[in-house]
Amino acid sequence: MSKERLVVIGGVAAGMSAASSYRRLKPEAEAIVLEKDFFISYGSCSLPYYVSDEVKDFNQLISLTPKVAIEERGIDVRTRHEVSDIDLEKKQVHVRNLEKNETFVLDYDKLVITTGGLPIRPPLPGIDLDHVFTIRTLLDGIAIKKFIDDWGAFEVCVGSPECLYVNRFGNEKRPMKAVVVGGGYIGMEMCESLRKRGLEVSVVEKTDRVLGTMDGEITSIVEEKLLAEGVKLYKGTSVEGFKGLKGKVERVITDKGEFDADFVLLAIGARPNSDLAKKAGIALGVAGAIQVDEYMQTNVPGVFAAGDCAEAMHLVTGKKAYIALGTTANKQGRLAGENAAGLNKKFDGIVGTAVTKIFDLEVARTGLSSIDTKREGLKFFTSAIQGWSRSKAYPAGKKMTVLYIVEEGTGRLLGTQMVGQEGVAHRIDTLAACLYGRMTIDDVARLDLGYAPPFATVWDPILVGANVALKKMKQG
Amino acid sequence: MSKERLVVIGGVAAGMSAASSYRRLKPEAEAIVLEKDFFISYGSCSLPYYVSDEVKDFNQLISLTPKVAIEERGIDVRTRHEVSDIDLEKKQVHVRNLEKNETFVLDYDKLVITTGGLPIRPPLPGIDLDHVFTIRTLLDGIAIKKFIDDWGAFEVCVGSPECLYVNRFGNEKRPMKAVVVGGGYIGMEMCESLRKRGLEVSVVEKTDRVLGTMDGEITSIVEEKLLAEGVKLYKGTSVEGFKGLKGKVERVITDKGEFDADFVLLAIGARPNSDLAKKAGIALGVAGAIQVDEYMQTNVPGVFAAGDCAEAMHLVTGKKAYIALGTTANKQGRLAGENAAGLNKKFDGIVGTAVTKIFDLEVARTGLSSIDTKREGLKFFTSAIQGWSRSKAYPAGKKMTVLYIVEEGTGRLLGTQMVGQEGVAHRIDTLAACLYGRMTIDDVARLDLGYAPPFATVWDPILVGANVALKKMKQG
Repeated sequence: MSKERLVVIGGVAAGMSAASSYRRLKPEAEAIVLEKDFFISYGSCSLPYYVSDEVKDFNQLISLTPKVAIEERGIDVRTRHEVSDIDLEKKQVHVRNLEKNETFVLDYDKLVITTGGLPIRPPLPGIDLDHVFTIRTLLDGIAIKKFIDDWGAFEVCVGSPECLYVNRFGNEKRPMKAVVVGGGYIGMEMCESLRKRGLEVSVVEKTDRVLGTMDGEITSIVEEKLLAEGVKLYKGTSVEGFKGLKGKVERVITDKGEFDADFVLLAIGARPNSDLAKKAGIALGVAGAIQVDEYMQTNVPGVFAAGDCAEAMHLVTGKKAYIALGTTANKQGRLAGENAAGLNKKFDGIVGTAVTKIFDLEVARTGLSSIDTKREGLKFFTSAIQGWSRSKAYPAGKKMTVLYIVEEGTGRLLGTQMVGQEGVAHRIDTLAACLYGRMTIDDVARLDLGYAPPFATVWDPILVGANVALKKMKQG
Repeated sequence: MSKERLVVIGGVAAGMSAASSYRRLKPEAEAIVLEKDFFISYGSCSLPYYVSDEVKDFNQLISLTPKVAIEERGIDVRTRHEVSDIDLEKKQVHVRNLEKNETFVLDYDKLVITTGGLPIRPPLPGIDLDHVFTIRTLLDGIAIKKFIDDWGAFEVCVGSPECLYVNRFGNEKRPMKAVVVGGGYIGMEMCESLRKRGLEVSVVEKTDRVLGTMDGEITSIVEEKLLAEGVKLYKGTSVEGFKGLKGKVERVITDKGEFDADFVLLAIGARPNSDLAKKAGIALGVAGAIQVDEYMQTNVPGVFAAGDCAEAMHLVTGKKAYIALGTTANKQGRLAGENAAGLNKKFDGIVGTAVTKIFDLEVARTGLSSIDTKREGLKFFTSAIQGWSRSKAYPAGKKMTVLYIVEEGTGRLLGTQMVGQEGVAHRIDTLAACLYGRMTIDDVARLDLGYAPPFATVWDPILVGANVALKKMKQG
């Protein structure tokens, strides 16, 4: 081959970011993206809002079509192309065209692996029954929404002329009873979506709380909200399997009893999809994610990894972590593409910022939670306050809880969590900046934050919380 | 006197914070607050929402009444007591009881001066006509609202039994035509309030834009909003005086012509009310504000100053500045009280964060504007982008503008300004934290900010703006 060639495995957030930044820097070079799915470059974080019908058309979730990627960015996008092997020696990938069922071999100069994450599907009895869904890809979202909308047999058309059947069998009745297995972010967001669609929703969570990595002061408020919204919550309950009729799920079996279900959402987390990299001999790091350095390069020169299949440096612990989030995937992908094109740019790392909307609650975290901090063996204390989103005089203010996690002795801010109906989602970013700057709780208490009655109290809840934490620290 | 005694001159934000923190630390000591007005400890930033009637009762603006301050905090609050002189030698203040018209002398061990700011009232012809208002104190707000509500003669009762006449003459008709002189924060907020009360509103601003210290990319959007809300805007127009009939204002005279007005709001800024301190021989600093060190102490040991009468260190310039804001007043006041009680706590300083709501726009700034930066003689460039408040797929997202001011060469963040209908007010605080941490625009671009479709785009507008500014810097 004459032109320099980048091959990217996977075409969602990280993959298309990598290909795009590479082509921007090297317009003369070739960038081939191999995506086994039908779609590229979609916002999977918006899937719950597509299912809820707040987003009507799945095309709104797509930020880049293959056509636009090819014509406007000059990226050779090949959907329905699965990579079966990476030959690091020969610098080749083995590819199967899933439409034509043909295989071929492709040379590369640089390789970026963005194979994403895989939803965990434990080998429980009945897990392969129809209507035991996971929600990770756009196709998952389409299948779920179609099942709720048109529960009879249906097909989904993806581009023209191909039509894909996502539910071959259909169902005898509209789904009424949903069981969400797992109380993490996606499970919680989907509770809202499914309630909005009129389903009865039960959550089965094996630990003692939802949003298990967050602290009880925050999660108890989320649990109250679930109950207020008519969601049944079964904590400390483990799923042992599923029973069905005619291939379709009908009951969820747990250690505490059985639940009726004509819709099951498995939302018990995801693992890095690093099997292909591992098979090729590329080193894995934390949690089985592909090991990368700060340039997003794997242990093999010229081979990069980014997004949900890769690890990231956690700036609070100074250690590698596996926290799969869309923002990180975009940043890492862009950087992997830039470095594949010859730049030498570093990805500092993450501080673990995440935000979610659960019914009318905004829930946010950054840095370490108590559980994370204990795992790191750090000495810490927590301090929580209730504040208000607006000046008390100004109408319609809402309560919010702000929880700080602070290192004993040094006073270093380790993490913050917040929950409330208003003003939480963006407040967390201020603390994310503080973590990036390695600030202490004393620094946080000194911040010069904006104040106007419609947006805050004169002592912002961030400052109130920091002052209370500071006092707690001084009193030992 | 046997007990140690703190005297505080002024009982609003800074003053009551000082007295409260002093008493917390020294419950055995005496704290006397002398306030010449009827009210203490009220939220003057909420006055526009009281006038607009979003806040019904002025008592909602009061966070602490004299009764509660006396009974629960043990602070000897004396309203309607004006200090006429400070004798630094004898450590005494000369006080006039305005109700009884008696004078007396009070010894102090420590003194905190929180005399606030004074609205600028230039000696223009007709400025003393009735219904030429300023809005700074709670009494100002009460007078304005009463004038709009009950334009005939009225009185205002403040506690019992005293009743205060704020409008002796009354008016023949309901005010219809308001002229707001000055396009600063308060003027802009009051445009919204007065439009909500059904008045015709014209703004007369002598410079070429409203919110004069902010950059044109931001202020042009505010000006569009004013016009869309039916506010008439006369820029580059200087007020030369006022004409009246029977002692009441009827016309505003400018260099561009005359405007009908039965209501004038003078909102052309405030100056530090430092006359008393100056007369006593206490040193003044920048802009005529009382000079203070990082402990909020004046040049006279044991005499502190805080709030709108005092200067503050600006952390971006490293120089003293006069930026009067409620948050700073509260922080400085608390610290002055703590240090008067024997602590040794430093006030780091401010970064100039301010946020305001103008109709449905959120407008925010932190750090230096272009004008500020030029004045400092720093080399800088600006970079502005348009972003979205929500994922494009998620309904009802709003546009926002993010403007960065960056030092040439070093890439140091000097300031940020934002405007938009949603998500601006709290985003600015993230940049305030970055300024506190002396971060570069490259640091800002690397922040790990939260993402969920209802709250942001996957590249938050903060990050999009930082990346564009970074690219601009690299291209020189």
